Amino acid sequence: MIEKSELHAPIGIFDSGLGGLTVFREIERVLPAEDLIYVGDTARVPYGVKSAETVTRYAQEICDFLLGQGVKAIVIACNTASALALASLRPRYALPLLGVLEPGVASAIAATRSHKIGVIGTEGTIKSGAYAQAIQQRLPSAQVVSRACPLFVPLVEEGWGHHEVTRRVAEIYLGEWKNNSLDTLILGCTHYPLLKETIAEVLPGVTLVDSAQETAQALRALLAERNLLAAGRKGRSRYYTTDVPQKLTELAARFLGHEMAKVEQTRLGE
Amino acid sequence: MIEKSELHAPIGIFDSGLGGLTVFREIERVLPAEDLIYVGDTARVPYGVKSAETVTRYAQEICDFLLGQGVKAIVIACNTASALALASLRPRYALPLLGVLEPGVASAIAATRSHKIGVIGTEGTIKSGAYAQAIQQRLPSAQVVSRACPLFVPLVEEGWGHHEVTRRVAEIYLGEWKNNSLDTLILGCTHYPLLKETIAEVLPGVTLVDSAQETAQALRALLAERNLLAAGRKGRSRYYTTDVPQKLTELAARFLGHEMAKVEQTRLGE
Repeated sequence: MIEKSELHAPIGIFDSGLGGLTVFREIERVLPAEDLIYVGDTARVPYGVKSAETVTRYAQEICDFLLGQGVKAIVIACNTASALALASLRPRYALPLLGVLEPGVASAIAATRSHKIGVIGTEGTIKSGAYAQAIQQRLPSAQVVSRACPLFVPLVEEGWGHHEVTRRVAEIYLGEWKNNSLDTLILGCTHYPLLKETIAEVLPGVTLVDSAQETAQALRALLAERNLLAAGRKGRSRYYTTDVPQKLTELAARFLGHEMAKVEQTRLGE
Repeated sequence: MIEKSELHAPIGIFDSGLGGLTVFREIERVLPAEDLIYVGDTARVPYGVKSAETVTRYAQEICDFLLGQGVKAIVIACNTASALALASLRPRYALPLLGVLEPGVASAIAATRSHKIGVIGTEGTIKSGAYAQAIQQRLPSAQVVSRACPLFVPLVEEGWGHHEVTRRVAEIYLGEWKNNSLDTLILGCTHYPLLKETIAEVLPGVTLVDSAQETAQALRALLAERNLLAAGRKGRSRYYTTDVPQKLTELAARFLGHEMAKVEQTRLGE
């Protein structure tokens, strides 16, 4: 029998910085009765250029912090941490731990007709090969092409999502995939949904998979299966950052689509 | 009387990541008899988007680490840490602590005729106002214009120092300073010397001040004044990173101009 206090325990969602707010936003929409806690590791952002060892240590410190907050489930709303750390973290924790990689892969496999799937992400995500591996496990006939796009995150953070420079960079990064049989592209970084229109201009007709929506649906299914869904109430959201909160508050609206309630600062593993 | 062991103690040089190697390289050239220790805080890079509070904490942890290595002086080879942390760190340490900001300012003041000086750097450096303040203290008639250039570091790290995209970004960032009386521009970030040619195309005739050379000269003067100069020997260099060393080794040649000896990993303040 599940206690009401467990049903109403919060869900933890974390990212290296702000990008995970695109996932947070979808979860807020799909599961409005849940209490949510967001952690943005803004003192150590970004993860995409760092090693599996370091990213795993950071992710583990955040999971421990969230556990201390009494969460009932954790969503790793960061592609790099999902690719580099999730597999080694899962055996450490009893509670449900969900990344953004598997929902994105499921969605891409459902969408592809040509079985030629592209993946873009940070250097860490692409070098790990985690996406290609997950796709080929589920769809052995799939042909996967991938590419790290290191300038996309800084371009989004500069506010240049629709800028001519970004269009040119997208052309350089992705142009070689034009007019071949690639029909599905996984946006393997939580910043990239903010570049959807620009990427669609370079690769017209290609289905762009943004895992935020799929992740929220997968989380709902997971909680339902374990009888952990809250209902009949209005959930509350809390936000934590590891650097001072100011920057998160400033940029949050771009990712979250609304203003943020009070943001608190926390220190991790030090 | 100064002990020989103190004369031959190493000099510590640090940066958030790789950029400080442009300063390291000049010090190696100007002071070939000195032992040098470089620390790149690659697990927490970059500093330029982080708060003064967090950058100061990181810089202090590195200074403490270098003290443990028995250094006789420390060079903060990072503009952001020089701008945000140096003033509050100086009273904490008995040994000479030198940043890149003051040497850069001295050089700009020596170069300017129009007394109109530009400064570019990270968001943290520019927001701090530290350059403008230091310039106006020494040259009250100076007019200082400044601008954060957040895309320059990622463009350098992408290897696009001479790329058409970088030229376009430089045009957008700096174009408004064309054809006015600005005659001197401080490259207030250790990555920017790698963009010198591109910036010179956008601002022809403007003197570009790269503080690496001035910093090495200022360090020599400081050590000479305190009778701490090593001589008559060939110095050795050691390198530490906070993330795994691989990435530093891969990119180092671009900044350092030569291969690196063995790089070790260390953990700081945690």
